[in-house]
Amino acid sequence: MANSAFDSIFCPRSVAVIGASPDSKRLGYYCLQSLITSRFPGNIYPIHPSLPEILGFKAYPSVTLVSDEVDLAIIAIRTSLVPAALRECIEKGVKGVVLITAGFREIEDKAGAELQDEITAMANAANIKIIGPNTFGIVNLQAGLNASFTPEFSLTPKGNISMVSQSGGFCHLMVPLAMAEHVGLSKIIGLGNRCNVDFADVLDYLGDDPDTKVIIMYIEGTDDARRLYEVARRVSVEKPIVALKAGRFAARDEAAYSHTGSMAGEPRVYGAAFEQAGIISVNSSTELLDTAKVLALCPLPQSNRVATLSEQAGPGIIVCDTCEEHGLVMARFSDKTIARVAALLPPLAGMKSNPIDMNVWNNGQTVSGVIEAVLEDENIDGIVLYAAYTPAITALPRAIAGLLKSPRKPVISCFPCPPGVWVEEKQHFDENGVAFFPTPERAAKAMVALVKRSQIVNRSRL
Amino acid sequence: MANSAFDSIFCPRSVAVIGASPDSKRLGYYCLQSLITSRFPGNIYPIHPSLPEILGFKAYPSVTLVSDEVDLAIIAIRTSLVPAALRECIEKGVKGVVLITAGFREIEDKAGAELQDEITAMANAANIKIIGPNTFGIVNLQAGLNASFTPEFSLTPKGNISMVSQSGGFCHLMVPLAMAEHVGLSKIIGLGNRCNVDFADVLDYLGDDPDTKVIIMYIEGTDDARRLYEVARRVSVEKPIVALKAGRFAARDEAAYSHTGSMAGEPRVYGAAFEQAGIISVNSSTELLDTAKVLALCPLPQSNRVATLSEQAGPGIIVCDTCEEHGLVMARFSDKTIARVAALLPPLAGMKSNPIDMNVWNNGQTVSGVIEAVLEDENIDGIVLYAAYTPAITALPRAIAGLLKSPRKPVISCFPCPPGVWVEEKQHFDENGVAFFPTPERAAKAMVALVKRSQIVNRSRL
Repeated sequence: MANSAFDSIFCPRSVAVIGASPDSKRLGYYCLQSLITSRFPGNIYPIHPSLPEILGFKAYPSVTLVSDEVDLAIIAIRTSLVPAALRECIEKGVKGVVLITAGFREIEDKAGAELQDEITAMANAANIKIIGPNTFGIVNLQAGLNASFTPEFSLTPKGNISMVSQSGGFCHLMVPLAMAEHVGLSKIIGLGNRCNVDFADVLDYLGDDPDTKVIIMYIEGTDDARRLYEVARRVSVEKPIVALKAGRFAARDEAAYSHTGSMAGEPRVYGAAFEQAGIISVNSSTELLDTAKVLALCPLPQSNRVATLSEQAGPGIIVCDTCEEHGLVMARFSDKTIARVAALLPPLAGMKSNPIDMNVWNNGQTVSGVIEAVLEDENIDGIVLYAAYTPAITALPRAIAGLLKSPRKPVISCFPCPPGVWVEEKQHFDENGVAFFPTPERAAKAMVALVKRSQIVNRSRL
Repeated sequence: MANSAFDSIFCPRSVAVIGASPDSKRLGYYCLQSLITSRFPGNIYPIHPSLPEILGFKAYPSVTLVSDEVDLAIIAIRTSLVPAALRECIEKGVKGVVLITAGFREIEDKAGAELQDEITAMANAANIKIIGPNTFGIVNLQAGLNASFTPEFSLTPKGNISMVSQSGGFCHLMVPLAMAEHVGLSKIIGLGNRCNVDFADVLDYLGDDPDTKVIIMYIEGTDDARRLYEVARRVSVEKPIVALKAGRFAARDEAAYSHTGSMAGEPRVYGAAFEQAGIISVNSSTELLDTAKVLALCPLPQSNRVATLSEQAGPGIIVCDTCEEHGLVMARFSDKTIARVAALLPPLAGMKSNPIDMNVWNNGQTVSGVIEAVLEDENIDGIVLYAAYTPAITALPRAIAGLLKSPRKPVISCFPCPPGVWVEEKQHFDENGVAFFPTPERAAKAMVALVKRSQIVNRSRL
């Protein structure tokens, strides 16, 4: 029931844009542009009091005058006009609303909260879900739906990571990061003031969504922490949930309330609840993206015993440092592996145990032999590969990418290089399930995230 | 005396490449290419046993046969041939050597250590400084000198940050990061096995180098920690020194020794010594680059009282969280500032105290007025500006960049945007002393680094 309502919002056959405008100073102009740039495959109905046509689409003075069914209405009009527009949506039988307009519970004047109560009551009575108010919108990249005021989001790479955020601003941070690092997203959801759709509702929906493999959350606070906990605890058994909890600083409650109308709450309480609910907590936007990426691409390790294979010893040491600081173990190889590796590497090579100095990267056969030997070692649960670009190893990533296809243990790679070098190779790694990261620290922390997730999965199986 | 030796190494008038080769499988080929791509303005003398000419340069069978003076010799030949080559350099009166060849103290066979002792004794007797052995080389971007085996390093942006690294691999991580983020470097120095040039020597030289404003270090261990401490303590009064200490993990000593022939040592001992020496310690390559960048660009804050001005509340909250977690204070504005800001912002705006919701970024006059008011507040030592790209604020960064030129308090900015957007504007910010960072966490931590540096400077004045 709830999910069929969300299906209408995320996979609508038709969308009305209430407040659509040919004037590029208005949000409604951008909402219509977003549907165009995302190549929305269904029908688009601009709603405007007087214009007969906007950006090439026939416009209607009211949503009630559209003859077709309307699954989703995007509303971007003045605050005072919202109740009337919502009434017309209900009359028309619109199935879901993305309410972009702000000026509700987040403003100082209590008239804002009253107006939000009013529209929430209307929506609940009509059994309509509203995303928002005070949201930038939603995007479903898999359905060609950009129901937001940011047309550029249509260019986000497609993948299976869905993002739920209290803050539209946070989405405008994460999406450019995902674009720059070619991390594929599925659904991008700005919850805004959460009048009748809160984190728990969306988590519940994404838990059953076949296009979502990993869920990432930006949360300041929620009015229904208990329900969030219960839904997350259930969903996290099947799908990883990764959360960045903001609002840890002293004046947090005031700032968060004036943002989307909720208190940030005591950070430590959230931290403990998240852990019990199987939510992986992270400390930064970069870590959120990296954790999502590695969970989307790599198999889980059995345990925390890691090997580092590095062309350059220095950054290999950094990988080891970072792994150990986060509870991973640079495990000892089995005697069999030690013998296999020693037979493969030249006599004068550096470390042949863990970490291995792989300054033979230009020899594809040696590299493939060493990686294979370490992958087969029962003492090792995952590998971090590192090699920075030097003229001697230009062919390296291609050689490795060719031999590593969907490895059964996690293999994480980091191949720093000048801009413009190894671009295709990096893409190739990601596509073959060997997640690629730009620094040795981020590669190591990605392995830490995989181990955390495997611990959550193992715990849920007890 | 020592410094004139280093002048010959970093600003030579002529360079010999011993081991120069037309064969792209040999390091000597790349060493010659590096001098060509960096447009080295002095004379270049390839040394090769038989060829009369290499890559367009007249070649000589021995450095002793070059009629011109030779300031610097780059040696990239087989290990066993190094002593003879070094003898010829001494005979010729070469003033400094970059010894790229490996196979010395870092190898298991003790013959390596013996050979290193032998060449060190020769060099010391002749009063010649050797950078290396087992180094990728050095680069002095300000002098057009790329004396390394990586020609691509000639394209590094020029600036006033100098890097000293025990690990060439670490340089091959940092330089691409600097390129990607347009952070300008001055000298890039791979110390390798440090036969008679160690961290302390280079720090001493860079302390007096007018082209170096900030020194960054990657260190695993040193044989002369006491001298490093003393030199760093003196240099850090005038110039910031930022260090990443690697080798904190359990098997560190073995790995570091097989790398460049020194023990990593007890991490906590290094941490305490660094702090007393006025060295700023960082935990990752990204933090090392960010810290160097902000110290190179921004004035120091008086103290730790920071203001956050953000277009989007969510990432503004992240800035506040990150600042407070690292000891900064989101200070209360003076009554005068509160009144000035309230008069400028529209009545329905969100937070008007610290952090300020600046969702008026499209209004250049308002923005400039608010920034000016906060900059003038005696309770505030620095500002973090944040605005993610949305269609409503496309003109924002240009407006701000125009009004902020070399502010007298540090102003740090973060304007996330899709790739290809605001490219010139970012450059413009950096050039005007408003350091630019890609995420709110990194922007906040850059402010933390400035505060740390100001504490070191204040302490040294007591």
